[in-house]
Amino acid sequence: MMSAEEIWSLLREKVSPREIEDVDLAGAWGRTLREAVRTTEDMPPFDRSAVDGFLVASADTSEVFTVVGEIRAGEADLPVLPMGNARRIGTGAPVPEGGEVIMLEDAKAQGDQVSFSRRGADHIRRRGEDARAGDEVVPAGVVLCDGQIALLASVGCVRPRVTRRPVAQHIATGNEIVEPSAIPGPGQIRDTNSALVLAWAQWRGLKCAQARIREDAAALRERLSENADLLLVSGGASVGRHDYTEAVLREAGFEILVTKVNARPGKPLIIGRRGEQWAFGLPGNPLSHFVCLHVFVDAAVSAMNGAASSPVLLSANVTDWIAGNPRETWWPAKTGHDGLCPLRWASSGDLTALASADALVRVPVSGLAAGARAEFIRTR
Amino acid sequence: MMSAEEIWSLLREKVSPREIEDVDLAGAWGRTLREAVRTTEDMPPFDRSAVDGFLVASADTSEVFTVVGEIRAGEADLPVLPMGNARRIGTGAPVPEGGEVIMLEDAKAQGDQVSFSRRGADHIRRRGEDARAGDEVVPAGVVLCDGQIALLASVGCVRPRVTRRPVAQHIATGNEIVEPSAIPGPGQIRDTNSALVLAWAQWRGLKCAQARIREDAAALRERLSENADLLLVSGGASVGRHDYTEAVLREAGFEILVTKVNARPGKPLIIGRRGEQWAFGLPGNPLSHFVCLHVFVDAAVSAMNGAASSPVLLSANVTDWIAGNPRETWWPAKTGHDGLCPLRWASSGDLTALASADALVRVPVSGLAAGARAEFIRTR
Repeated sequence: MMSAEEIWSLLREKVSPREIEDVDLAGAWGRTLREAVRTTEDMPPFDRSAVDGFLVASADTSEVFTVVGEIRAGEADLPVLPMGNARRIGTGAPVPEGGEVIMLEDAKAQGDQVSFSRRGADHIRRRGEDARAGDEVVPAGVVLCDGQIALLASVGCVRPRVTRRPVAQHIATGNEIVEPSAIPGPGQIRDTNSALVLAWAQWRGLKCAQARIREDAAALRERLSENADLLLVSGGASVGRHDYTEAVLREAGFEILVTKVNARPGKPLIIGRRGEQWAFGLPGNPLSHFVCLHVFVDAAVSAMNGAASSPVLLSANVTDWIAGNPRETWWPAKTGHDGLCPLRWASSGDLTALASADALVRVPVSGLAAGARAEFIRTR
Repeated sequence: MMSAEEIWSLLREKVSPREIEDVDLAGAWGRTLREAVRTTEDMPPFDRSAVDGFLVASADTSEVFTVVGEIRAGEADLPVLPMGNARRIGTGAPVPEGGEVIMLEDAKAQGDQVSFSRRGADHIRRRGEDARAGDEVVPAGVVLCDGQIALLASVGCVRPRVTRRPVAQHIATGNEIVEPSAIPGPGQIRDTNSALVLAWAQWRGLKCAQARIREDAAALRERLSENADLLLVSGGASVGRHDYTEAVLREAGFEILVTKVNARPGKPLIIGRRGEQWAFGLPGNPLSHFVCLHVFVDAAVSAMNGAASSPVLLSANVTDWIAGNPRETWWPAKTGHDGLCPLRWASSGDLTALASADALVRVPVSGLAAGARAEFIRTR
């Protein structure tokens, strides 16, 4: 039985990043940057006014200035002014060497004359104050969101090099499961894992093919894709199911690296590899499924993406106590202003907590007292 | 000058939710549920075995049982057994009234005989223990992610009623901005706000049309969409820009509700409405842009979506001190195991902090001491 840490290390070490491709900025959201991006220019590229106001020579101590024109953003640099002269300047406009900018609020203009109530404040964004030519601005391994994409745009990187989207295949097995639109007959329940996995895959930016089959070794064997980066098999829940997925994977040439994990819910987790392909046999119970996807499969996807670190373990205080258990537990919770609020769940089949859960709290064997600091993983 | 709270209240109160449509589960990710979903059946719908093991009559105190068959998940209920008989049972299989389930680990089987080292433990998931027929399982206002979608599947809700995607129009104005692929000439800089807004809109599930224009009232007036739910105008940064967007919006029939907000960076924020359309005039500096999008425009989108609450203010400790300022500041930070790590930024034009920022910390006028508790908004 492996610990969560052991599984994360194994995945970090053994799952190799997928191929690199480049995308345009409009398609970059959520993708993982694989090559660090540097700026080839100083940022900002020239001294710029930070405010709307007036430009004078900084050495010019005149009491009153004559306004002789205007320089606006987008206009080329102009030489600094002769003594006694001022020029209107717009935010973002270039400031020549030896120039001083006085903000509108410190100026009193009358006709073409202006005087200032305050001098010497620094309203210039200096060339290179954010970054110098050659500096790295976005490191490799970062997942690109709006802020990073704006940064790439600012340095002219319009085709970032990112990981291609991993391809997942999900097979839900079980004799008792029917599609969600069906009315379950006696002894049947609706398949929730297919909808769960598809939504999770969308969140993680995976391409995802899905199938729902009866519990049948031959059918599973036949379906296993040769090409998917990630194979996910959701068990049904009948006797011997677990051994059966493991056996089919072994027979198909997968090396089985994990069969049990010290996690609750979700103990009987199978992890196997066949070359660069990784397979997960997931316990059929929906809450176990949710936990295994977010705590373990997610880490494999991060490794495939070449993301800098995974899982991202945060910490916060729990608002209520959580009982201990001989196995480490991942408890559904809702993050809020006062910390992590643990949600009620009746069993590993009980999904109702997921109506509001946005986190899984890591509960040590000894449990957690109300107010205690706990680690958690975000699930949305 | 309005406070953040005043703007959030205004948006919550005045922005009305957009129309409702229904989608299939495969298209539901990220959408906001508008009608609460109830279960029409007990969950689970029948007593189910929680383990693999044996089924006997709970009143049967025999020492040794004869194994007379098997019931697996997906099979219909069978009557309880006569005394001295046991049946193999799979996880998820139905348990008849008066039945008891003993897990495999507590059983010793030899041929067709089985005896048990432990009796009386409850390994049955009872009908209705998660939810009763008629119970609400997912409330209106929830943003649908994988867990919620699985819950919808479990109760057979395959066409949830959600808000249609709001349509945004973004117009970047400015004489100094050039497209990101260009080499800026003297006094020019690359347009980063278009890339920022597009990525943010993708994150928020908006449809988004974009244009980049020179600073020209007529051009802006001409471009303003009649149909977009949300108009975003990114200013250039030259003298009079601010008044100019406001004037164009007024002239186009927008009622201007906000012109200044007590936030740093991002003070000159314009908010206007024309019927159900909402317009935001955003300060041109990229970091101000990022803050206004995440702190204010985001709240308008949540209101358009009919989302339960917005903004989601979380709290955590800051790992370092942050200086105060006469205006409330939204400071880029990175959430981590030890709390919120404030990032360096040189000015409202400095995007470099966004390489790693995933949060904006709300810094009160008095500043924050290292280790102090602070409110924050997640930005990714």
